Amino acid sequence: MMDSIKQTAKQARDASIQMAGLSDALKNEALTRIAQALLSQEKAITQANQEDLAQAEKDNISPTLIKRLKFAGDKLRTVIDGIESLKNLPDPVGVTLLSRELDDGLELYQVSCPIGVLGIVFESRPDALVQISTLALKSGNAVLLKGGSEAARTNQILAQIISQATEQAGIPRGWLSLLQTREDVKAMLALDDYIDLLIPRGSNAFVKYIMDNTRIAVLGHADGICHVYVDGSAQMDMAVKVALDSKCQYAAVCNAMETLLVDKSIAPQFLPQIKKLYDEQSVELRGDEQSRALIDCDPASEEDWHTEYNDLILSVKVVDGLEEAIEHINTFGSHHTDAVVTEDSTAAARFMELVDSANVFWNCSTRFSDGYRYGLGAEVGISTNKIHARGPVGLEGLVIYKWKLVGRGQTVAEYSGTDAKKFTHRNLNKVSNI
Amino acid sequence: MMDSIKQTAKQARDASIQMAGLSDALKNEALTRIAQALLSQEKAITQANQEDLAQAEKDNISPTLIKRLKFAGDKLRTVIDGIESLKNLPDPVGVTLLSRELDDGLELYQVSCPIGVLGIVFESRPDALVQISTLALKSGNAVLLKGGSEAARTNQILAQIISQATEQAGIPRGWLSLLQTREDVKAMLALDDYIDLLIPRGSNAFVKYIMDNTRIAVLGHADGICHVYVDGSAQMDMAVKVALDSKCQYAAVCNAMETLLVDKSIAPQFLPQIKKLYDEQSVELRGDEQSRALIDCDPASEEDWHTEYNDLILSVKVVDGLEEAIEHINTFGSHHTDAVVTEDSTAAARFMELVDSANVFWNCSTRFSDGYRYGLGAEVGISTNKIHARGPVGLEGLVIYKWKLVGRGQTVAEYSGTDAKKFTHRNLNKVSNI
Repeated sequence: MMDSIKQTAKQARDASIQMAGLSDALKNEALTRIAQALLSQEKAITQANQEDLAQAEKDNISPTLIKRLKFAGDKLRTVIDGIESLKNLPDPVGVTLLSRELDDGLELYQVSCPIGVLGIVFESRPDALVQISTLALKSGNAVLLKGGSEAARTNQILAQIISQATEQAGIPRGWLSLLQTREDVKAMLALDDYIDLLIPRGSNAFVKYIMDNTRIAVLGHADGICHVYVDGSAQMDMAVKVALDSKCQYAAVCNAMETLLVDKSIAPQFLPQIKKLYDEQSVELRGDEQSRALIDCDPASEEDWHTEYNDLILSVKVVDGLEEAIEHINTFGSHHTDAVVTEDSTAAARFMELVDSANVFWNCSTRFSDGYRYGLGAEVGISTNKIHARGPVGLEGLVIYKWKLVGRGQTVAEYSGTDAKKFTHRNLNKVSNI
Repeated sequence: MMDSIKQTAKQARDASIQMAGLSDALKNEALTRIAQALLSQEKAITQANQEDLAQAEKDNISPTLIKRLKFAGDKLRTVIDGIESLKNLPDPVGVTLLSRELDDGLELYQVSCPIGVLGIVFESRPDALVQISTLALKSGNAVLLKGGSEAARTNQILAQIISQATEQAGIPRGWLSLLQTREDVKAMLALDDYIDLLIPRGSNAFVKYIMDNTRIAVLGHADGICHVYVDGSAQMDMAVKVALDSKCQYAAVCNAMETLLVDKSIAPQFLPQIKKLYDEQSVELRGDEQSRALIDCDPASEEDWHTEYNDLILSVKVVDGLEEAIEHINTFGSHHTDAVVTEDSTAAARFMELVDSANVFWNCSTRFSDGYRYGLGAEVGISTNKIHARGPVGLEGLVIYKWKLVGRGQTVAEYSGTDAKKFTHRNLNKVSNI
């Protein structure tokens, strides 16, 4: 098994080398063929999906998961619309980021290029397979994919359709492969010679397992412990709206609020009011001592400040102003998304500068933290990394750059020692043609 | 010991939060004070350095290392010039990278910010301490530093001078700390809650040890196995110059050539000619079978293709054209710096696109691969990573970005469901004022 995964990864690595040189036209042609093939094989896809759904019902899979697993007409249409949008985005590869004359006839270019081979593990949403593989294709990367086992049959046929359609368009064979088992994923973690970046999506425990067991760079997030801080000068109606949406619009996702921080000056008015609305939505509250003096709820322990509930549960803390709020968020948060509600622009600016999170919001819901809402097109995930790509990651997060230096036989010896030639270091604002 | 390092790292983390908000003026003021303090305390620095040098001679340290260790008048002057150049560079923090209206009154900004806390381990060059810490300061990052033990006294006084000068200027206390022992470095590897990025410089074995023993992101390179490929259409004189400089200008560094690849059509003319020059420089050659049919040298084993000699030794291989050269480099190279010598621009373009290295050169020496020569100012190191920063890393590699979203109380619920409001996703070309 290990050997076959290594072979698959090696094939992806070989394909990735060739993919670095693909034109945007060819990549778009391949995207067109994917869309056509998905449409023309809709029946077979539906058939495979029905089998996955039947098995899932037999296995007593939760209705939420079954809803995600379903890949029928509307979802296929949405995915194909996504492919059309992707075609319209500019090629992220081959962009000249810097051009500089080092000396007469010695020119340096920094040019964007694909990362190479991506290993992506995603949840049981077959539409994710199409989104991820088309993003990888447009950015010139090869991919090893592993989807949720509940979607095995649907993923199998989708991967097969995409491989065939793209290889017919001239994308190198083996640029996309679907892994089958959890053992395959484990084997992949050791292949740092072939795989350049891992993007795990899924449960906290799973992402942490990946991070702890590989030398390969990992992009993504484990926890999503997001906060809303209601400042003393917040507009009451706005604070209520934002706090309600951040918790209740969709509680099971990483950008939902887990802890509500309230300035002590506004807490006596704000907390009773929001509690009424949370009660209507069956949100369970866990408060610190000061909160519980104002509203009736269970006590919060320190453990609560560290917890991502992913559910209709919320911890609440009354704080002594902006600085304590920032300190709390930087100590207990997961550096994902944190919002302040305030009418004081100085306080907002300080919050947004000092809160050490990928996404910092002023007067809006944490739920906006998303690649689609940001207008990035599809996203491969949300990163809480402090290097490379942070927040929602679209095409830009899937490229890196290389330095290209073009000379006429210059040697470093000429630029060293007593009679050393001098570098000119003159910016060229020129597009690399090499 | 472990606990005290944790305390030090926590202090750096706390300082880093405040540093994200420092103005360029304040950072430049702190840089000015560093330069002044270094000058005014030159005598004490020289004294400490003399003690390190005396100890090094007692310990029979190699003359090369002693030369690097020396930190007298000229080197101090160079370092101070470097600080002046750094002040003139634009602030890498607070740059608006993207601005976009998501809807009326809902504006998104992608703004550059410091990474946070850097852990940097560097060789026995005291000037490196000053360069690294001033780069960190200008980019708003806190640093934990560990230098070579041979320079312990010099590093100690330099770190003390820099800490004092910057804290007097208003940089948060504890933003810079000097670690003392190898155990401190080991302890640092476990502090992924406090340290955001490790930059190890030094031997391959040391860098690999770091990469294998931490969850923290690591920026840098282990090997520097660089190639020059002499194409069939190369200009002979140019090929000789480039091959000679790439190997001999300074053999002990990561951007020196370790393997020379020669197209079979030019090998009969080229190899005897370059061998004569290498003989004059006492370069030991190890060739494959085809090379040894043309020149007299020891045989190369497969091990040689994998080896960074860091010395006047060179492996030589005759290849069957461009494709074999690219394949060899991608298989055995370390993705650092590789050059092609050719008069054929199509061949050069293909080489530079398909060779999967941080730096790809056409008709010039591999030795140009360096932050100073690229005009990046000082560098913290050269990266062979495929994410974040690649090649020589200066200020730009020490920042990341955060997303700032500014609204008027908008909720995601308004943009969902049947009566969903639509996003406008209109680019603003506006600088963030928050």
